[in-house]
Amino acid sequence: MKAALVGFGAVGQGFAEAISEDPPVDVSLVLAADSGTAAVDAEGLDPVQLLETKEKTGDVGGREWTPDILDEVEYDVLVEASPTTLDDAEPAFTHFTKAFDSGAHVVTCNKGPVSMRYGEVMELAREAGVKVRVEGAVGGAMPVVNTVEESLAGDTVHGARGILNGTCNFILTRMLEEGLTYEHVLKEAQDMGIAESDPTFDVEGIDTALKCVILSNVLFDGDRTLDDVDVEGITELTPDALRLARDSGHVVKLVGEVSEDELTVAPRLVPEGEALDVGGTLNVVSFDCELAGEVTVVGRGAGSLETASALVSDVAAIARESGGR
Amino acid sequence: MKAALVGFGAVGQGFAEAISEDPPVDVSLVLAADSGTAAVDAEGLDPVQLLETKEKTGDVGGREWTPDILDEVEYDVLVEASPTTLDDAEPAFTHFTKAFDSGAHVVTCNKGPVSMRYGEVMELAREAGVKVRVEGAVGGAMPVVNTVEESLAGDTVHGARGILNGTCNFILTRMLEEGLTYEHVLKEAQDMGIAESDPTFDVEGIDTALKCVILSNVLFDGDRTLDDVDVEGITELTPDALRLARDSGHVVKLVGEVSEDELTVAPRLVPEGEALDVGGTLNVVSFDCELAGEVTVVGRGAGSLETASALVSDVAAIARESGGR
Repeated sequence: MKAALVGFGAVGQGFAEAISEDPPVDVSLVLAADSGTAAVDAEGLDPVQLLETKEKTGDVGGREWTPDILDEVEYDVLVEASPTTLDDAEPAFTHFTKAFDSGAHVVTCNKGPVSMRYGEVMELAREAGVKVRVEGAVGGAMPVVNTVEESLAGDTVHGARGILNGTCNFILTRMLEEGLTYEHVLKEAQDMGIAESDPTFDVEGIDTALKCVILSNVLFDGDRTLDDVDVEGITELTPDALRLARDSGHVVKLVGEVSEDELTVAPRLVPEGEALDVGGTLNVVSFDCELAGEVTVVGRGAGSLETASALVSDVAAIARESGGR
Repeated sequence: MKAALVGFGAVGQGFAEAISEDPPVDVSLVLAADSGTAAVDAEGLDPVQLLETKEKTGDVGGREWTPDILDEVEYDVLVEASPTTLDDAEPAFTHFTKAFDSGAHVVTCNKGPVSMRYGEVMELAREAGVKVRVEGAVGGAMPVVNTVEESLAGDTVHGARGILNGTCNFILTRMLEEGLTYEHVLKEAQDMGIAESDPTFDVEGIDTALKCVILSNVLFDGDRTLDDVDVEGITELTPDALRLARDSGHVVKLVGEVSEDELTVAPRLVPEGEALDVGGTLNVVSFDCELAGEVTVVGRGAGSLETASALVSDVAAIARESGGR
């Protein structure tokens, strides 16, 4: 498989690292781009050298990056790992369309195009006869999309509930365990690199909502966007509220709920010991299945190597489906 | 897909039920066999009628069953759901070889051939250019094999630990919660249909061991058998031992451990709140992954419809890989 990698931040670098040594799928990187520069080689770039160049110079390549470079090179799959943007999901949406125009598949961890413009994306992919795989965009290394689309392909999944943001889960876990205020634990999480300096995206529930939108679009082949989600974050929660919940045998979690009718993100009481009662930065999703009953997946929802592993798995799946292993 | 269904007990009937109404994959049943009889129709049998016939007469069809019937009909996939046998894994192994001779894939929940003769099975399948899918043989509806082979295809899985027998988990959960003896809870489980009248297979750890062997063979492409597993069951455990464990913050579970070097099944102390701390009849497996860290799957490890769902998912995967969806 020839791959074009757009986005060379933490996850893009994780992808380069993951394929640098004995990768489980034969991938040759013909393009690597960060926000400003690009490296191109039809014969295949050396991932290790790309990582060194990036570390030394801050740039991945010697050419100025413009999406038009995607028209120059031949590749089988676009690995889109640029930062998530909302609204028109640009420039990722343009990268997607250029891949489709070249007859290339897309593998992505970018939540923008598949949460804001899913219907358009899938329509264009269908017309081009290519696949779009989004495991990396929902819950990092935790297999969510593939569990629905492959492992549970013989079943009907009616809905899903889950904890899809490790930052919120960390904050709520610490607040409960130590009796600390939201502000105190947020500061701690920022110091540890678990929360961003502007934590809005996580703590207001937007990140969770985007993942719910993607999961809903995959589950019900829909075209929902962020506007279709009722969202409430965790910023108003107090240690007292968490303690009260515990006294009645519950923990408070930021839970995303996906059904055919409704998408909600809000703090919920979860009975202690239930499937969704996972602590720290862990993520979890429980699927409500017609035949299999409740199936739950737990894993690390973020992290560069973890998310890169989802990208590599998706590239491997495309290789498998377009020619057997 | 034309399917031949061999085995019409609880799971076989579950499979017929699962494909009877709006199945997620287009399956036509050309053969259905129980231990004594068979129904054959190259144009496709009606699953609902098969279920009615079986209920009314005790037989699935009007012909005497012999494996040679598999040579008569044309089918794309053998769904092998006959009871697990050990040692030479017959007659299931013969059913497998007949499928391979016809160029048909195999989907199975039968632990025999893939735990006792995995190397032979895979060699014959390779020669025939067909696939063998075994999701239903490990943990019922809980996606274990597919999680390894597909969702985590981009990662390296170093090993797995899990609770793979719902009967043992039920017994240990009840012993701890109610302070009851092993014998008392076993009787209760037998009355509820959770344990067999001869519970040896479950409580001595053999069922768990077989699942570990299959998982090991899939993970490491090996050829291990039951003889390679150190097995200890739960029959010697006392309520006192469980209580002592709890006093130190642990639960006792029958845990199967799979690594490249070793296969063990034994009662283990699991810290409360850890991934493997799931109660009742639930099953759980945690994978130790190079990139993704720990990924855990929880679900119902048994049940006829649950296991049937795994069989249908595997048939769907074969349909997908041999022609796209």
